[in-house]
Amino acid sequence: MITVNIIGAGNVATHLYKAFNKSNQVAINQWFSRDLKCVQDFDSETDITNDLSTLEPTDITIIAVSDDAIAEVSKHIPYENTLVVHTSGSVSLHELDKKHRRGVFYPLQSFSKTAEIDFSNVPICVEIDRLADVPILKKLVTVIGSPYYRINSDQRATLHLAAVFVNNFSNQLYRIAHEITESTSVEFEILKPLIMETAHKIESISPYMAQTGPAIRKDKRTIKKHLNALKNPIHKDIYQLLTKSIQKTHGR
Amino acid sequence: MITVNIIGAGNVATHLYKAFNKSNQVAINQWFSRDLKCVQDFDSETDITNDLSTLEPTDITIIAVSDDAIAEVSKHIPYENTLVVHTSGSVSLHELDKKHRRGVFYPLQSFSKTAEIDFSNVPICVEIDRLADVPILKKLVTVIGSPYYRINSDQRATLHLAAVFVNNFSNQLYRIAHEITESTSVEFEILKPLIMETAHKIESISPYMAQTGPAIRKDKRTIKKHLNALKNPIHKDIYQLLTKSIQKTHGR
Repeated sequence: MITVNIIGAGNVATHLYKAFNKSNQVAINQWFSRDLKCVQDFDSETDITNDLSTLEPTDITIIAVSDDAIAEVSKHIPYENTLVVHTSGSVSLHELDKKHRRGVFYPLQSFSKTAEIDFSNVPICVEIDRLADVPILKKLVTVIGSPYYRINSDQRATLHLAAVFVNNFSNQLYRIAHEITESTSVEFEILKPLIMETAHKIESISPYMAQTGPAIRKDKRTIKKHLNALKNPIHKDIYQLLTKSIQKTHGR
Repeated sequence: MITVNIIGAGNVATHLYKAFNKSNQVAINQWFSRDLKCVQDFDSETDITNDLSTLEPTDITIIAVSDDAIAEVSKHIPYENTLVVHTSGSVSLHELDKKHRRGVFYPLQSFSKTAEIDFSNVPICVEIDRLADVPILKKLVTVIGSPYYRINSDQRATLHLAAVFVNNFSNQLYRIAHEITESTSVEFEILKPLIMETAHKIESISPYMAQTGPAIRKDKRTIKKHLNALKNPIHKDIYQLLTKSIQKTHGR
């Protein structure tokens, strides 16, 4: 049995709470939230608190708060020499107070408050100071059914950056497509199967091999037509820059 | 029973052939390919030809050839006053020879030669000259199980443009993420669940509502860190431009 404390009540904290709670190999000792209202629904299941000084030592303490608050929160944990991890993609392990055995437990997925999460689709990237702490963190990942990856700081920074491209930036391309279709009263709906297929395709072939369209074909007529059709100057810039990027990638 | 001729042997033609062949409400009379080798696997099932002049009239003739060849091919069809449609997203209906009753049968999906296609995930956008031709084209769409959309020329041009954003450009962002992860020997694999979830999310909420990340949070520290980490100047430009676009969309 792994005992844990959870600090924070945002999306990541809440989904982790639910995943741990389902497992019979994890016991949640205490759940801290600055604002008790955020966790009061779980009051009957677990020991909730809004006072860090009441926390008692566990095998693993998980800090899932906003990046800026991690260092401060870690200082106020009233015990030391236990394993304390944060869940951020971009904060250094060394921002955790050095009185702890320190680690990172970074779930690489986009969480929303409402939707249920299937943790088998949430790779967890683990970074750790002391080799001796690897087995228990690895166990915590596997009992919730997540793929486990051991990474270093550079790799985590890289993943966080790459995630911005595939998540935030792709989503913005969907948004632009939404604006474009609305401009001629076309249902954005029509594009959704293509969006899914584009993501699905690279499960079996590389993005390099999957590329198609006017840019890679160097179809100047279509590219010109598209640029003329785009009224928003930022959309035009994005079209030109990504076309250039595709042509550079494919050596044309 | 709808009778069809198919002209062309690329991905779209081949997948349409298979879908029609499965339906007991469609009869494929002849399948034309310039190069008989491309269709010889189907010789036992259907009448294949590499000579346009041998084609005989059917209810619908489908021209699924490269954009540049559509006008020329439509001229050489040796009959007139039947329904002839092309499958292109960007070619005008009026490029079809006016001796035909003309239409467009545009499947909005990314086809690969190998993967099987589920046509319930292939919206078909239909554009048509004469109202009287609507019912038979609509029937052809529905017998293969595809969602049917009647659109006009402007709307088709818009969809084609929007498809470049969600398909070619998103795929290029995946490619960039692949390059970034390789630079620190991280497995690109780790990002795949996030890519799928990003596409999946907008089935239930709009891309506007789905946006997260450093750009929308106006998290200058992270943005600066990311820009410093990007070595490729085009990747840096893309990061800056899409960050600007997100901030503009969300009024910051």
